Amino acid sequence: MKPGRLQAFSDGVFAILITILVLEFHVPAYRTGHLWTAVLHQWPILFAYIISFLYVGTLWLFHHDYFNTIAQIDRGLNFVNLVVLFPITLVDYPTNLIASALASGNQSDMKTAFIIYDVVALLISASFKLLYTYVNRHATLRVKQAKHTKLHQKTKDDPLRSVAIYAIALVVTPFSTWLGALLLLAGIIFHTVAYFRLSRSTKIVID
Amino acid sequence: MKPGRLQAFSDGVFAILITILVLEFHVPAYRTGHLWTAVLHQWPILFAYIISFLYVGTLWLFHHDYFNTIAQIDRGLNFVNLVVLFPITLVDYPTNLIASALASGNQSDMKTAFIIYDVVALLISASFKLLYTYVNRHATLRVKQAKHTKLHQKTKDDPLRSVAIYAIALVVTPFSTWLGALLLLAGIIFHTVAYFRLSRSTKIVID
Amino acid sequence: MKPGRLQAFSDGVFAILITILVLEFHVPAYRTGHLWTAVLHQWPILFAYIISFLYVGTLWLFHHDYFNTIAQIDRGLNFVNLVVLFPITLVDYPTNLIASALASGNQSDMKTAFIIYDVVALLISASFKLLYTYVNRHATLRVKQAKHTKLHQKTKDDPLRSVAIYAIALVVTPFSTWLGALLLLAGIIFHTVAYFRLSRSTKIVID
Amino acid sequence: MKPGRLQAFSDGVFAILITILVLEFHVPAYRTGHLWTAVLHQWPILFAYIISFLYVGTLWLFHHDYFNTIAQIDRGLNFVNLVVLFPITLVDYPTNLIASALASGNQSDMKTAFIIYDVVALLISASFKLLYTYVNRHATLRVKQAKHTKLHQKTKDDPLRSVAIYAIALVVTPFSTWLGALLLLAGIIFHTVAYFRLSRSTKIVID
Repeated sequence: MKPGRLQAFSDGVFAILITILVLEFHVPAYRTGHLWTAVLHQWPILFAYIISFLYVGTLWLFHHDYFNTIAQIDRGLNFVNLVVLFPITLVDYPTNLIASALASGNQSDMKTAFIIYDVVALLISASFKLLYTYVNRHATLRVKQAKHTKLHQKTKDDPLRSVAIYAIALVVTPFSTWLGALLLLAGIIFHTVAYFRLSRSTKIVID
Repeated sequence: MKPGRLQAFSDGVFAILITILVLEFHVPAYRTGHLWTAVLHQWPILFAYIISFLYVGTLWLFHHDYFNTIAQIDRGLNFVNLVVLFPITLVDYPTNLIASALASGNQSDMKTAFIIYDVVALLISASFKLLYTYVNRHATLRVKQAKHTKLHQKTKDDPLRSVAIYAIALVVTPFSTWLGALLLLAGIIFHTVAYFRLSRSTKIVID
Repeated sequence: MKPGRLQAFSDGVFAILITILVLEFHVPAYRTGHLWTAVLHQWPILFAYIISFLYVGTLWLFHHDYFNTIAQIDRGLNFVNLVVLFPITLVDYPTNLIASALASGNQSDMKTAFIIYDVVALLISASFKLLYTYVNRHATLRVKQAKHTKLHQKTKDDPLRSVAIYAIALVVTPFSTWLGALLLLAGIIFHTVAYFRLSRSTKIVID
Repeated sequence: MKPGRLQAFSDGVFAILITILVLEFHVPAYRTGHLWTAVLHQWPILFAYIISFLYVGTLWLFHHDYFNTIAQIDRGLNFVNLVVLFPITLVDYPTNLIASALASGNQSDMKTAFIIYDVVALLISASFKLLYTYVNRHATLRVKQAKHTKLHQKTKDDPLRSVAIYAIALVVTPFSTWLGALLLLAGIIFHTVAYFRLSRSTKIVID
């Protein structure tokens, strides 16, 4: 089967998620005449949404580039794609947890929020590992061009590296909120950097 | 008419539903400093959303594979597709009912929630039966390839089997909440298993 | 320019609307142990959502069939399509008004809700008239096949007939809530019937 | 890489935004029997949503026409497109701020709301400038036809003109709410007018 509808369905899920994320950035509760102060207090929350936008956006970029190398799909790949999409649809939940914990400023709640985000991010990276493994074992699904092998080789260890970062973040967060937050942030930025590193190394061979 | 836009529209509906489902998994009400306990109490609710994600995801898989065998659509099929999509858009409602009833733990409310879910699931399976019947009576709409007949034969009794499971669940639930829940769960998992059974039996003949 | 993205964008808007409509059908406020009674009281509201689903679904069917006869788009048609989509995105608002008024059962509020729905429906039909007129004046945009002329002739007066029905409903509703509601319902069902009438008369000529 | 999925993903984001915008136009809080008065009081708010619909719709029209001139995308353009989409997803937030401030009628809150809208609009125009600059520096991405050069030349200064309008609005709003509002409105209408001006000047050369 052609990957057209799998891509269209996935694009729909990504588009909804990335749009809804920011839609959760609500008008704050405020006393009439004090909207300005209320809005200013929202910047840490806006920052959380910007990071999640970057995260989901980068996941879409990888999904986009990866399925560009897939010529055929089978029922197994169709199902694995659902497994990849599920934890991604969860990103909105820990983002809201972080926004809520940042609003109250409670250390214990922030730790909870960061840990849940770590778990979701770890599951996402693990599901990408599953996707890459599935495709490697069903090589006939891939576009038959040597150049794509390079993309597959360059990216194949990224998910495990990310799983490691998020696992460390999980362990560190109970001891230090901000070190945990930094590791989480590093994990997310690592994806975007990996995408551009990919860009440089395969610029010519991928069209 | 070509099925392109019918598929794109349906993909949109499925993508929104499956994404929104999990978006209903809200930040719990919690006292500052007690987010961890509040989040832990949400796992039964998360389970309800995971099952509904699996359900809507599997319905999309069937829709995807089925319309892969359709070469032409007419106005009747366009309308029948809306009839199929309507009960699917309702899935979010009983999922929220179950989440709400699980949160309170009240047996009577859980029975209500499971029964409404059974009714919606029964309507979905019945609408798929309508879809299969419509296409069988308008055979010119199908891709003219013998191999697809096999897919149509393998799947044609699935909807009625599901209707039977959900009807039994409907009758059993008032007497036993958990047996009713188990039957509902069995019905949903039956769809996913049926999809993979299909996969094995038609692996070679479908491309 | 090709109509591909105009159709994809419109499909997205229709898919979101038709899905969100039913998502507004919320878990009712209920006392623990009384979910069943609360759910039963929601049936008139569910009916309002079913009618709006049928309405938006039928509008999509017409949009789908109509743009099937368009080979090229220009900037004017791109803009006219936005004008068509705007009142359609409003349908959710009067549907919620009707659901809210039905829940309280207040006659005066129901009249308000039906009148707002009439206004939105009238604007939708008027915008379709605008679309048909625009395309008739820019005949080069159409698929160059005689058979499509028949579709254009069959449908060209439908919008004005609908505008008339909704205008009468607008005038009647302040005097009789239920006669007004009946006219509104008749207007919506008229669209679906018109679609199938179209189906019979152009079955052979349209592919 | 082909721009197909970038367009589909962007169409999804635009479709969700433009639909959700109006969905935020909620049933007003009202006492039973006074829905009519409550609805009438919503017209200034409806006006805010209509303007944002026009704004997001026009941004889609430009995105649509612009990517019509792109034959190939690379990873950089894929990322720049995310940068363009981000501030657009923010439009819903200041629209709600304006709706909220208009509802209370407080001058100071209105200024806040208009200023936030100005900032978002300025970021959107700046991101379009980034998009145009990126494509100009990677000319191989463009459709190789002289006629499109005209589109690029006609539109290349539009973003900077808009940035200027919104910057002036930003400065003026603290001194005069209504002059600020007028400048914001002028900026948005400027986009729509620019689209039609484009239409006239390139009617023949673009197909």
